[in-house]
Amino acid sequence: MILVNGVVAESVSAIDRGLSYGDGVFRSLVAWQGRPRHWRSHYGKLEHDCAALAIPCPPAGVLEKEIALAAEDTPEAVGRIIVTRGSGERGYAPPATPSPTRIVMVSAMPEYPPEFARDGVVVRVCETRYASQPRLAGVKHLNRLENVLARAEWNDRGTAEGLMLDADGQVIGGTMTNLFIVENGALVTPGLSRCGVSGVTRKRILHAAQRAGVACSEEAVPLSRLLRAQEAMLVNSVVGAWFIKSCAGTRWTVGTLYERVREWIDDEGD
Amino acid sequence: MILVNGVVAESVSAIDRGLSYGDGVFRSLVAWQGRPRHWRSHYGKLEHDCAALAIPCPPAGVLEKEIALAAEDTPEAVGRIIVTRGSGERGYAPPATPSPTRIVMVSAMPEYPPEFARDGVVVRVCETRYASQPRLAGVKHLNRLENVLARAEWNDRGTAEGLMLDADGQVIGGTMTNLFIVENGALVTPGLSRCGVSGVTRKRILHAAQRAGVACSEEAVPLSRLLRAQEAMLVNSVVGAWFIKSCAGTRWTVGTLYERVREWIDDEGD
Repeated sequence: MILVNGVVAESVSAIDRGLSYGDGVFRSLVAWQGRPRHWRSHYGKLEHDCAALAIPCPPAGVLEKEIALAAEDTPEAVGRIIVTRGSGERGYAPPATPSPTRIVMVSAMPEYPPEFARDGVVVRVCETRYASQPRLAGVKHLNRLENVLARAEWNDRGTAEGLMLDADGQVIGGTMTNLFIVENGALVTPGLSRCGVSGVTRKRILHAAQRAGVACSEEAVPLSRLLRAQEAMLVNSVVGAWFIKSCAGTRWTVGTLYERVREWIDDEGD
Repeated sequence: MILVNGVVAESVSAIDRGLSYGDGVFRSLVAWQGRPRHWRSHYGKLEHDCAALAIPCPPAGVLEKEIALAAEDTPEAVGRIIVTRGSGERGYAPPATPSPTRIVMVSAMPEYPPEFARDGVVVRVCETRYASQPRLAGVKHLNRLENVLARAEWNDRGTAEGLMLDADGQVIGGTMTNLFIVENGALVTPGLSRCGVSGVTRKRILHAAQRAGVACSEEAVPLSRLLRAQEAMLVNSVVGAWFIKSCAGTRWTVGTLYERVREWIDDEGD
C-alpha cells in the first residue's frame, strides 16, 4: 500500500519537485507488525536531512500512523518514507512556502540468502565513484544516480554489494550500505564529510561501541587499508550486517566484532 | 496539459525511478504553435543523455506528436520532456529490460523583463558549487539538487541568474544557463568534462561560430578570467541570451558579439 499525503494512492503529481529535480529525502526502514524499528533514530535522521534541504519535516506521529496503515497486511515489511519539497512552478527556485509531499510505502521484507549474514558476502569494487559535495554529504537525498550507476556494474547474484570510492580512492561505503572495518580490536568507519550517506545503523553502531567501551572512529579508509583489516562488514537498516568474506582478491573469515555488531544492531533500543 | 506515456494525466507512478533516484533525463524547449524549435538539436541531446544512462530513448516522432498535442492551447509554450527508467522494484539495480516513462508537459512562455535581453542582467556568484563527476558531466539528468541549492541562495528579482563554480573555482555556468565570454573577438565557453550541463543552445552557438569564422573554444574559465573579459553572456533555449552587465563588482555594456550570438540563436536552422 502507498499513502501520498495520507491518502491511499498509486501516483504522485507529475510536477512534484521530487521527480523534476530529486528535490527531497528518503528513509528505508524495517516495520514489524506495522511498527518501525528504531523509529527515534530514523525520524531524527529524517528531520536532519529535511533540515539540510530546508524542507519542513512531517510530524513523527503522522508518519508513524501512516506506516502502520500502509503495513497493515505486511507483518514483516520494509517501509520507505519519501519527503519532497512538493509541487512547484517551472524552475529551480524553491517556492517561498513549500508544501511538502510525503509518501509512505511498504513492501515485503526482501529475502536475502541466509548465508550472506552467516558465511559472509562477496563484494566488488565499483568503477563509479562518489563526487565530493560537502553541501550534501551524509544526506539521504533523492539524487542517487551515482548509486544507480554503481549498482548497474554487476548483475551476478553471487556478488552481494559493491564498494564505492571517492575520487581520491578512499572507500566511502557500499552502494546501499555503510562500511566498518576492524583493526586491532577497534572499529573504523569511513568519514562522510564530503560524500556518501550516513545511515542510521552506522550511527547506532558508533553509539553502541562507545557505550560498550569499544574504540570506534571515523577516518579515511583507502582500499589498501580495508584489504589489510582483520574484519570488514557492511551494514544498513534492512540487511543488518554482512561480513565481507571476499573483496579484490582478499579473503576473510567471520570475526569476533562482527557478532557484537550484529547484537548491537538487533537491540531494540534506539 | 501533461501527457504521461501518451495519455493525458496529472500524475506519475509513486514507484517511478525518476522520483526514487532521479533516474532519468529531461529537456526544456520552446514550442511555437505546437512545434518545438530546434527540434533536431533537442532530440539529439535527449538521445545522447538517455544513452549516457542506458535508458531507451522514445522515438522522435512520438515526442513531436505529444508536444503538439500538449501545446494545443498554448501558442507560445515552454515544453518539458522527461524520460525516466520507469517503475522499478525496491533497490538501486536497474531493471534488466526497463520500460521508460516519458512525460511531456507545456507551460506558458515565462515573461522575463524585456530589459534583461536589451540592457543586460545582474548576476551573482553562488556559494553552492558543482561536484566533479565525469561520469555524469554534461548530461541533463534529474539529479539537480546542486542547482536547486544554488538558486535558493537569492530571491531578489533584480538578480537574474547565479554563476556556479566547481570545487577548483572554475566558472561552469549559470544555475540554468551556459556561459560565453569574449576575449579579443573570440568566444570562450567553460569546458564541461567534469560537471555542468552542456545545453543545446551552447552547442548551436559553437557550431554557428565555426560556420561564421569566429574563433570559439571550450576552456577553463576561472572567475578572474570572466571578470577581465570584454563581454560575458548567459544562454539557454528558453531565455535565448542575456549579456551580463554586472557581476562581483565588474560592469559591462552591450558588446558586438552579443548581437551576433542572438542572431545565431534565433536562426531557425538546427
